[in-house]
Amino acid sequence: MTIPKTQKAIVFETSGGPLLYKDIPVPTPKPTEILVNVKYSGVCHTDLHAWKGDWPLDTKLPLVGGHEGAGVVVAKGDQVTGFEIGDYAGIKWLNGSCLSCEYCQQGAEPNCPDADLSGYTHDGTFQQYATADAVQAAKIPKNVDLAGAAPILCAGITVYKALKTAELRAGQWVAISGAGGGLGSLAIQYANAMGYRVLGIDGGDEKGALVKQLGAEVYLDFTKTKNIVAEIQKATNGGPHAVINVSVSDAAISQSVEYVRPLGKVVLVGLPAGAVVKSDVFSHVIKSVQIRGSYVGNRADSQEAIDFYARGLVKSPMKIVGLSELPKVYELMEKGQIVGRYVVDTSK
Amino acid sequence: MTIPKTQKAIVFETSGGPLLYKDIPVPTPKPTEILVNVKYSGVCHTDLHAWKGDWPLDTKLPLVGGHEGAGVVVAKGDQVTGFEIGDYAGIKWLNGSCLSCEYCQQGAEPNCPDADLSGYTHDGTFQQYATADAVQAAKIPKNVDLAGAAPILCAGITVYKALKTAELRAGQWVAISGAGGGLGSLAIQYANAMGYRVLGIDGGDEKGALVKQLGAEVYLDFTKTKNIVAEIQKATNGGPHAVINVSVSDAAISQSVEYVRPLGKVVLVGLPAGAVVKSDVFSHVIKSVQIRGSYVGNRADSQEAIDFYARGLVKSPMKIVGLSELPKVYELMEKGQIVGRYVVDTSK
Amino acid sequence: MTIPKTQKAIVFETSGGPLLYKDIPVPTPKPTEILVNVKYSGVCHTDLHAWKGDWPLDTKLPLVGGHEGAGVVVAKGDQVTGFEIGDYAGIKWLNGSCLSCEYCQQGAEPNCPDADLSGYTHDGTFQQYATADAVQAAKIPKNVDLAGAAPILCAGITVYKALKTAELRAGQWVAISGAGGGLGSLAIQYANAMGYRVLGIDGGDEKGALVKQLGAEVYLDFTKTKNIVAEIQKATNGGPHAVINVSVSDAAISQSVEYVRPLGKVVLVGLPAGAVVKSDVFSHVIKSVQIRGSYVGNRADSQEAIDFYARGLVKSPMKIVGLSELPKVYELMEKGQIVGRYVVDTSK
Amino acid sequence: MTIPKTQKAIVFETSGGPLLYKDIPVPTPKPTEILVNVKYSGVCHTDLHAWKGDWPLDTKLPLVGGHEGAGVVVAKGDQVTGFEIGDYAGIKWLNGSCLSCEYCQQGAEPNCPDADLSGYTHDGTFQQYATADAVQAAKIPKNVDLAGAAPILCAGITVYKALKTAELRAGQWVAISGAGGGLGSLAIQYANAMGYRVLGIDGGDEKGALVKQLGAEVYLDFTKTKNIVAEIQKATNGGPHAVINVSVSDAAISQSVEYVRPLGKVVLVGLPAGAVVKSDVFSHVIKSVQIRGSYVGNRADSQEAIDFYARGLVKSPMKIVGLSELPKVYELMEKGQIVGRYVVDTSK
Repeated sequence: MTIPKTQKAIVFETSGGPLLYKDIPVPTPKPTEILVNVKYSGVCHTDLHAWKGDWPLDTKLPLVGGHEGAGVVVAKGDQVTGFEIGDYAGIKWLNGSCLSCEYCQQGAEPNCPDADLSGYTHDGTFQQYATADAVQAAKIPKNVDLAGAAPILCAGITVYKALKTAELRAGQWVAISGAGGGLGSLAIQYANAMGYRVLGIDGGDEKGALVKQLGAEVYLDFTKTKNIVAEIQKATNGGPHAVINVSVSDAAISQSVEYVRPLGKVVLVGLPAGAVVKSDVFSHVIKSVQIRGSYVGNRADSQEAIDFYARGLVKSPMKIVGLSELPKVYELMEKGQIVGRYVVDTSK
Repeated sequence: MTIPKTQKAIVFETSGGPLLYKDIPVPTPKPTEILVNVKYSGVCHTDLHAWKGDWPLDTKLPLVGGHEGAGVVVAKGDQVTGFEIGDYAGIKWLNGSCLSCEYCQQGAEPNCPDADLSGYTHDGTFQQYATADAVQAAKIPKNVDLAGAAPILCAGITVYKALKTAELRAGQWVAISGAGGGLGSLAIQYANAMGYRVLGIDGGDEKGALVKQLGAEVYLDFTKTKNIVAEIQKATNGGPHAVINVSVSDAAISQSVEYVRPLGKVVLVGLPAGAVVKSDVFSHVIKSVQIRGSYVGNRADSQEAIDFYARGLVKSPMKIVGLSELPKVYELMEKGQIVGRYVVDTSK
Repeated sequence: MTIPKTQKAIVFETSGGPLLYKDIPVPTPKPTEILVNVKYSGVCHTDLHAWKGDWPLDTKLPLVGGHEGAGVVVAKGDQVTGFEIGDYAGIKWLNGSCLSCEYCQQGAEPNCPDADLSGYTHDGTFQQYATADAVQAAKIPKNVDLAGAAPILCAGITVYKALKTAELRAGQWVAISGAGGGLGSLAIQYANAMGYRVLGIDGGDEKGALVKQLGAEVYLDFTKTKNIVAEIQKATNGGPHAVINVSVSDAAISQSVEYVRPLGKVVLVGLPAGAVVKSDVFSHVIKSVQIRGSYVGNRADSQEAIDFYARGLVKSPMKIVGLSELPKVYELMEKGQIVGRYVVDTSK
Repeated sequence: MTIPKTQKAIVFETSGGPLLYKDIPVPTPKPTEILVNVKYSGVCHTDLHAWKGDWPLDTKLPLVGGHEGAGVVVAKGDQVTGFEIGDYAGIKWLNGSCLSCEYCQQGAEPNCPDADLSGYTHDGTFQQYATADAVQAAKIPKNVDLAGAAPILCAGITVYKALKTAELRAGQWVAISGAGGGLGSLAIQYANAMGYRVLGIDGGDEKGALVKQLGAEVYLDFTKTKNIVAEIQKATNGGPHAVINVSVSDAAISQSVEYVRPLGKVVLVGLPAGAVVKSDVFSHVIKSVQIRGSYVGNRADSQEAIDFYARGLVKSPMKIVGLSELPKVYELMEKGQIVGRYVVDTSK
């Protein structure tokens, strides 16, 4: 396999600065890294934050963004044992972690204080060749469609982890707040594959049709509902056993603490800027509910999430464009005009 | 055993009305109930709420309050199998439950929508003879001091349940916010017996001395601390793995979400009126923390909590007075002048 | 609703004695019991043991057998709150338990030392009117077919509980040893509904066709397999994460400890007479596997198992005959000639 | 820090061949390894098996044995982030693992098929300078006694992991079969620190005195007991909730399945050659017990086990001799004449 010296990438030099589609050097993997020829990369809302630099954590600069990359291993460091040249590999948000801190030791690598983040503190997947720590890189079976795998690597893993965090048993109700969006669409499918009963919450008839088609048993349109707490509790015979909050509405999150079933779990997973969840202590105690934060998955969560995809049980609605068109995708994203997931083809 | 027809009790006819120390009929147990000759009853802050009627849930009226009663079984209904005449028994906040709803079926009887509450919807333990559902009544071993057992029946069970809800492993740190109070004192001792490391938070030197003497490894005086979040995290090398909130301060509760360790659990258990817990969604997710409500324990929790007491591992600081003096205890309670637990002797 | 004084039943006076189809008095429920007009009752292998008296535990005599009864509540004791006249109810193997021992307190009522067993220590469901403890009786939704519900009440609950005991996550492999039998058929369906991948093991092509049709991803015919351990491990890419042993073969059980995946769980649930499971300590430790016993379900397990049935996700293959024909069913059972489940209609 | 070119070590060239105390080269760490100046190393029964070569798995040859080494980091590969020169470090049985397989991904590194084992497939701690994978090496706080830490690194971690595998809650009974031996002595202390009640089983008065002194509530001398099952169940009011089998007796292991409490867990952890555990299926199911295999701990278990030691809660009885005397220790071990743990000082 011949690896070129230079490649195409989208780079920015300053936070919010021009997104340049240009030639840059192909990076060299460290002894513990693999070099992946990224074929496709999903575009996530986090990429927009990384570019704008509006999160409390600094990015590296200049930066190549992107953290949902699916491709082929073309080189590897001499300490790497988990991959062979030619294997399919996925690059995730968590590019690498220290493996030695108390969080890494218990398998909570995303909580590692020294986490290295793709497209944030480590050049990401909006380039043709990217490096990834071999321990954290995801293994992708050879029989799958790489374009479809890309959105699984962040969106899929994230909602799957949130569902695991809810610790439901098959047959219980899960409400998905924001069911018609990119994360919600995947959450419905994972929830179905896990045997849960899904109530999807979103606004409008188009979203409703999608939500039902993806497998939700009940759709609740918040634009047409007078008493959403009462209606959700009625539809689920007492409230859902868990709620996955992928909606960006601050109010919707706090409301989910009200309608969740006694003993139920409200899972926070979306990251609306500046949002605060509020809960009445008296009813929180009497109902014995829980509010659980869920971040991205660890290595095992990631492989499991990919496995559901490889078995054909989940599929992300997506639109493929060339890498060079990324700036336009950001534009649409900022305007809130994106339905489903955009995936860039790095060869174009 | 001769059971009298009448007995002494403290009764009130209307919410907040006079607390009458008078003779009332001894109740007759239903086929599924036991009749307990209450020897001692603890006095809990909830009793004050029941009397004042300032909670959203109505009490029965007239009412005999009290829900921490320890005594001797003197009669039982013909369907009762779990108790014999002469056994020691404890009457708890949860007097009885339906046993058939989904919450009872999974052992979450305190969450039963038809829960019958001692000293609230069912005449309680501020009388010499009280009835209790035989399934919910607690078994007390014959070798223990009944006066000391009384506070275990609500305060002890409640903090023990909160510690179980935290799901810690031995060797982990638990912070107890309000460590010097009645609930806090017991929480420290249970936490020690469970192998946890305790950081107690309260105000003042007197509280500090008590907290350390009861077994806390670290005492943090919030009246003398400039940056409580930083100091707690320093003392516990990154934050406690769990926080038990028995303090009545609204602000202290929300603060505990900040200083808890990543992956940690904030347990809500105290019921300060109108309190709201607030949490920043971004850090809730990134730190993957949880806010868990913990109500009173079920039957198994109760027996376990009593077992720790019977083994001499926990002891409630208390002051014993006659039942007739209950109105004075309420007065002190309203003024916030109570240290430790008051226990009434029903024979006086 | 008029309740007759007498009814039809199958009774035997001595262990292994004549099975008499005759008129006996309708029983009167205790204050804590319901009286159920049994419409249909499944016939389980345990009923044969109860009749023959070949188990270590004595039965009551004379005895009415049967413990899979589905019917209608026609009377109830005055302490019963969970049922109304006219409700559908199910009578299970566990007719009642003490509710006060340490096992009942933690929801493990089947392990209660004073468990009262339908068709064994308490007259069962091979009669038109049977009594059941209201706390243990199962609630059956009004919209379901009662004949189909009968086998769920023992066979369904038992395999569902075994699957819960395996503590799998969706996407993991479960092997069902004896997949083509009555318990196995239900286990396949429950496993599918819980999101597990099923490998069914049994003998012969007819069984194979059934196993695949019920939803197993892989069928393994032990009569045609040279190295069953190797083939199972190959088909499941390293061994199933759990094995449910409903086969009556002693050797098959011990073999399942060999082929289960490292960290996997072997669940014992069938009760072949005198069987002993053997495991090599060295590989048990190195592979860190577990052998878990699973008995019948508790109240929550039972309602959950029924809920899967009510939602149409599981269905027992069955043949309905009149109650008077029960002796013939026992005859077939003894000869091992039963395929699927026999259900008796008590009206015939 | 000056690192010599050669060092003292105990080496053998063939299985069971001469144990040579001689000079060998100091090894060079790989990019992902640390080089530890081993100060002390415990001697474990496994070392004897490694030397004799009587286990099914081949060792490397020639081999330096030993897998309980405590020392100081003197060099490290350029990819190592978790250690600094001068840190205290521990070398465990699990020297390194692939970090990429499904077992490593879920934190079950000891079950990794490519596990690299100290003193078995990787030169161990019976030398002055040994290498260890930086991710698997244990961190030892600076304030502890390194000689005392050595036995924690295998014996301590192993019994601590076994206790975790039992999943007990504080206040429950654990029986330790073989309580007076090296593993048993540590198990008693860990169990106490975790809040469990300990019943120790062993033979003889001397063992009994030790067992009680280390904190067991009850000692049961199997040489003086007629009906051990009955006596254990009586002493624990129904059987221990778990049994830790560190005894090498085949019969004792199978017996533990009999006396364990219903719902209880029998943990296999010792590795007596050729042992088979047997369990009666009927009672295994009816009692709903479990037989769980427990191997050595993972990174988190290891740090936790060391933390108990650093806090002064556990202490291994030990005897320190020079490394050159190792052959004599093996001799005593073969004769079964060792009480407590031998630790070798590599400087002598």
